[in-house]
Amino acid sequence: CLLLMSSLPPPQHKFSKDTNADLLGFVDDFNGIIIDSKSLPTDKEMFGIVLQASLEVWKQEKRKGIWLKIPLPTHAELITEAIGQGFECHHGESGYVMFTKWLPETPNTIPAYTSHFVGVGGFVLNDKREILVIKEKNGPVTSIWKVPGGTADPGEDIAETAVREVLEETGIPCEFECILGFRQLHTARFGKSDMYFICYLKPKHCDIKIQESEIADAKWMDLDEFLNLKYYQGVYKKLLELGKDYADGKRDGIVAESLPVVFKPGNNTVYYTDNQSRL
Amino acid sequence: CLLLMSSLPPPQHKFSKDTNADLLGFVDDFNGIIIDSKSLPTDKEMFGIVLQASLEVWKQEKRKGIWLKIPLPTHAELITEAIGQGFECHHGESGYVMFTKWLPETPNTIPAYTSHFVGVGGFVLNDKREILVIKEKNGPVTSIWKVPGGTADPGEDIAETAVREVLEETGIPCEFECILGFRQLHTARFGKSDMYFICYLKPKHCDIKIQESEIADAKWMDLDEFLNLKYYQGVYKKLLELGKDYADGKRDGIVAESLPVVFKPGNNTVYYTDNQSRL
Repeated sequence: CLLLMSSLPPPQHKFSKDTNADLLGFVDDFNGIIIDSKSLPTDKEMFGIVLQASLEVWKQEKRKGIWLKIPLPTHAELITEAIGQGFECHHGESGYVMFTKWLPETPNTIPAYTSHFVGVGGFVLNDKREILVIKEKNGPVTSIWKVPGGTADPGEDIAETAVREVLEETGIPCEFECILGFRQLHTARFGKSDMYFICYLKPKHCDIKIQESEIADAKWMDLDEFLNLKYYQGVYKKLLELGKDYADGKRDGIVAESLPVVFKPGNNTVYYTDNQSRL
Repeated sequence: CLLLMSSLPPPQHKFSKDTNADLLGFVDDFNGIIIDSKSLPTDKEMFGIVLQASLEVWKQEKRKGIWLKIPLPTHAELITEAIGQGFECHHGESGYVMFTKWLPETPNTIPAYTSHFVGVGGFVLNDKREILVIKEKNGPVTSIWKVPGGTADPGEDIAETAVREVLEETGIPCEFECILGFRQLHTARFGKSDMYFICYLKPKHCDIKIQESEIADAKWMDLDEFLNLKYYQGVYKKLLELGKDYADGKRDGIVAESLPVVFKPGNNTVYYTDNQSRL
């Protein structure tokens, strides 16, 4: 059950050292152990000895999942030792690789890492019923007209991504109105999933300035001409038609509202349909 | 620009060996190199020599991003060598660690890995206007009533996750009606982002059978009593009120439709507001 969970303070704040192991490890909320990276020796042999001794203690203490974060490049030597003692890679980032080991005989319930890429496109229509479209300079598809957009930066809201990408690629500053719809796909890069949101944006002016490094061409195209391009069918035809319906006042969008998180300081963005007043 | 990109066949299918390097590498659509893991030596010293020679060739050939996938546990020894030659960890899974190196003097444009966890909750209301709620056995929050739910399995659609989690946790089989709304949060586990979707589900019967391993309690609770629990405010109060509004016919949901991908076989699920007929 995820509701609330992700809004709580980072679990580290609640952990206590409540184990007799050689390595410094904190007991987590699931009776697992989070090994303190700061306490790791850099010497591989020494690490092998204390890890083995600690695992023995944790087995006796009936601990479940063991989390071992190996900082890079400083502690890279420890990786082969960890793998040798049965640890598996959980995920990695430029500064570390996280390994886990499940101690009990029961099935491993260690939660997986992030599963989804998040991409956002901008549906930008001007007063002449022309849509802002681009052609890419690089990548697998350079010959077709598309709406501008791209991948969410770390920590960026969907609405922010849409506005930023359109500005970067075409020089058009916009205001976010709503999400028109989105699709979920499960065969994206590295076998992971991808969510693509298409947002309705209102342009503040219409003077295109192309991003030279990534964009081969950009222009305003008649909306119906764009929708009739033969490569738009199925999923993408539908997503574009949602924009046409919205522009014509025939369909509501998914609006964004920033609300307090409650369980800690700050706000989160909530997205929902806003047709309440019309029913 | 992400539109279409993720729906195309895996780029590997389009790559050609068009380089004079010692290591077998394929040129990708961005003038980068994807090193063929199958061609990696297991000997660390040998790997160091061929990697260095290959990098020299790729620099001369003006290649950009180099992708190096090191299979685990078989090739773990190569990791320190790769790091020593300036590779950084891009991501990892239980069977491998992916490293990258950016060769040009220009800014690194290698795309990031997945950024979001996806969680789903079920808003299940019976004929007596009672909502299905649970208390968790483990984890940081065990004392409050919540709606059932959990994390999306790999390859699973939002609607499927909602139905599966409710069935697993409470034994109640349901039918998916719509997504009520969702929130995006950027301070979830490991500093990554999290999207939580709340779905309206119709129960097929009301006989609760608790999942013993994870759930401490489950019951049907009067909807207004649940909404008035003092810990529901801000983001979560709003998400729950969306369900109440929907149940009362005061708000539309976000419906799901399976549509052809077009650029390859298969369907994707598209989510959008469906109030067209009423406007």
